[in-house]
Amino acid sequence: MSIQAADRPQGVYAPVLTPFNADLSPSAPRFVAHCRALVDQGAGLAIFGTNSEANSLSVAEKRQLLDALVDAGLPPARMMPGTGACALPDAVELTRHAVNAGCGGVLMLPPFYYKGVSDEGLFRAFAHVIEQVADARLRIYLYHIPPVSGVPISLALIDRLLGEFPGIIAGIKDSSGDWANTQAMLRDFQPRGFDVFAGTETVLLDTMRAGGAGCITATGNVNAAPIVALYRNWQAPDAQDRQRALNDTRAIFQSYPMIPAMKAAIAQRRNDPAWMTVRPPLVELTDAQAAQLAQRLAAPAG
Amino acid sequence: MSIQAADRPQGVYAPVLTPFNADLSPSAPRFVAHCRALVDQGAGLAIFGTNSEANSLSVAEKRQLLDALVDAGLPPARMMPGTGACALPDAVELTRHAVNAGCGGVLMLPPFYYKGVSDEGLFRAFAHVIEQVADARLRIYLYHIPPVSGVPISLALIDRLLGEFPGIIAGIKDSSGDWANTQAMLRDFQPRGFDVFAGTETVLLDTMRAGGAGCITATGNVNAAPIVALYRNWQAPDAQDRQRALNDTRAIFQSYPMIPAMKAAIAQRRNDPAWMTVRPPLVELTDAQAAQLAQRLAAPAG
Repeated sequence: MSIQAADRPQGVYAPVLTPFNADLSPSAPRFVAHCRALVDQGAGLAIFGTNSEANSLSVAEKRQLLDALVDAGLPPARMMPGTGACALPDAVELTRHAVNAGCGGVLMLPPFYYKGVSDEGLFRAFAHVIEQVADARLRIYLYHIPPVSGVPISLALIDRLLGEFPGIIAGIKDSSGDWANTQAMLRDFQPRGFDVFAGTETVLLDTMRAGGAGCITATGNVNAAPIVALYRNWQAPDAQDRQRALNDTRAIFQSYPMIPAMKAAIAQRRNDPAWMTVRPPLVELTDAQAAQLAQRLAAPAG
Repeated sequence: MSIQAADRPQGVYAPVLTPFNADLSPSAPRFVAHCRALVDQGAGLAIFGTNSEANSLSVAEKRQLLDALVDAGLPPARMMPGTGACALPDAVELTRHAVNAGCGGVLMLPPFYYKGVSDEGLFRAFAHVIEQVADARLRIYLYHIPPVSGVPISLALIDRLLGEFPGIIAGIKDSSGDWANTQAMLRDFQPRGFDVFAGTETVLLDTMRAGGAGCITATGNVNAAPIVALYRNWQAPDAQDRQRALNDTRAIFQSYPMIPAMKAAIAQRRNDPAWMTVRPPLVELTDAQAAQLAQRLAAPAG
């Protein structure tokens, strides 16, 4: 691994789950402990992603949680906080905070309230944040997740952003679920220094074989070490077997609402029922679902 | 008009356009002047709606704009600010601020980032805001706009909220574009003291005939007096003619992106080009579009 490569975010990132107290306030101690465990397993920290319930948090809450990680000595270079927002002032504030904290990059949703907006409008949104933050350390990873955001980031928009802001526009998380789209990005943009992260570990092996940078994946929260192992050994003879095992574990979580299911799994592992708490509009698993999930995770792979 | 009726928001509300300066900061003086003109024409102020680019504003910006209106002596009882947000702390903060300012009601989007969420999750979201604000003066008008928010408010959810929080859950703006849905609300909920506002003046006459409360409509920004006139004269013999004329004017605006088109029309009327400014991800009309719009608005109805 070259020095240059080590300088850039790469590998496996978890969109870190955000633990709450019973009153729905964020629990910084649980957050720090979970992040430490992820880093110890070799995962990066994509805090404030979709699986983090990040858009259910205020800007102030996100600033405080990021500060708690830094204060606890976790490495900012391994953090890629989500800083996109509907309101540009919010995106600017959180992005600036992340850059000043030394984060390795930021993962940026487009403004996602209005649907059917033009590439010109989205270009202006990203350009506004870049110009307002005005910091050469800024590294933006675009966050393409049309099934949730409702606002896709087109290949034409990426091309324009890369041309206008080389170095600053550093890559993407592709959560489109459309492998052809990921392939097009790997082919057209990865050679231009634009790092493509798959949005799920189910295509991690394919992504690495096509020259990608890694993956940013929900199950990084609950299955980090095996996913990191495939990332590190993707050229090994057993890579396909590792991929299959990862897919089996993911399938278990995907048969429930993912965020509540991952929180239930952590609550069980840590023997800490508070970890099950989600913010509305999400709803935690029922006790019966949680018990069934625990059984399925404990069962030998069949 | 009875005293009781006058106490409740009713009639025609404009989702007030938010004017910006060249640097994209909100222009409070233009906002106050526009709101004053709307009130003078008999319209209510649904500030911070979809047409207000409200989700492109930070909570702090919205607080300041609301304060500017109150400081300018505009009547809070005629204000129905949008206070819904993805993040419950934001919704609580802005709702509390609106109640303390004496606003006649608030118009509340559900949290809109996650799609496909359950009625249970949405119920908890609204209940959380109500319980945190904890103020008997609170009057919530639900904001049902699935084409934009991606998160519908079902009839079953309304029924549950009305049962749990009678008086507080005061009505709805139905921007579904589905008249059958509006009819169902008028039939099932209006008799329970739940005021149904159409989301467009194109069904204002139908809404009034079915016992509704009025409409909250984009074109209230640019065509307020004629819409208010139909509201006041919906039982007059010429009501259908008035409705047709309103529809013709709306059709002109709808043939462009609505928000930029309405801003262009106001820029022309006020001879103030700054009014054309929108925040990304929206894009202002081109000069050619704006000139064509002005011609079409000036032409005699044909």
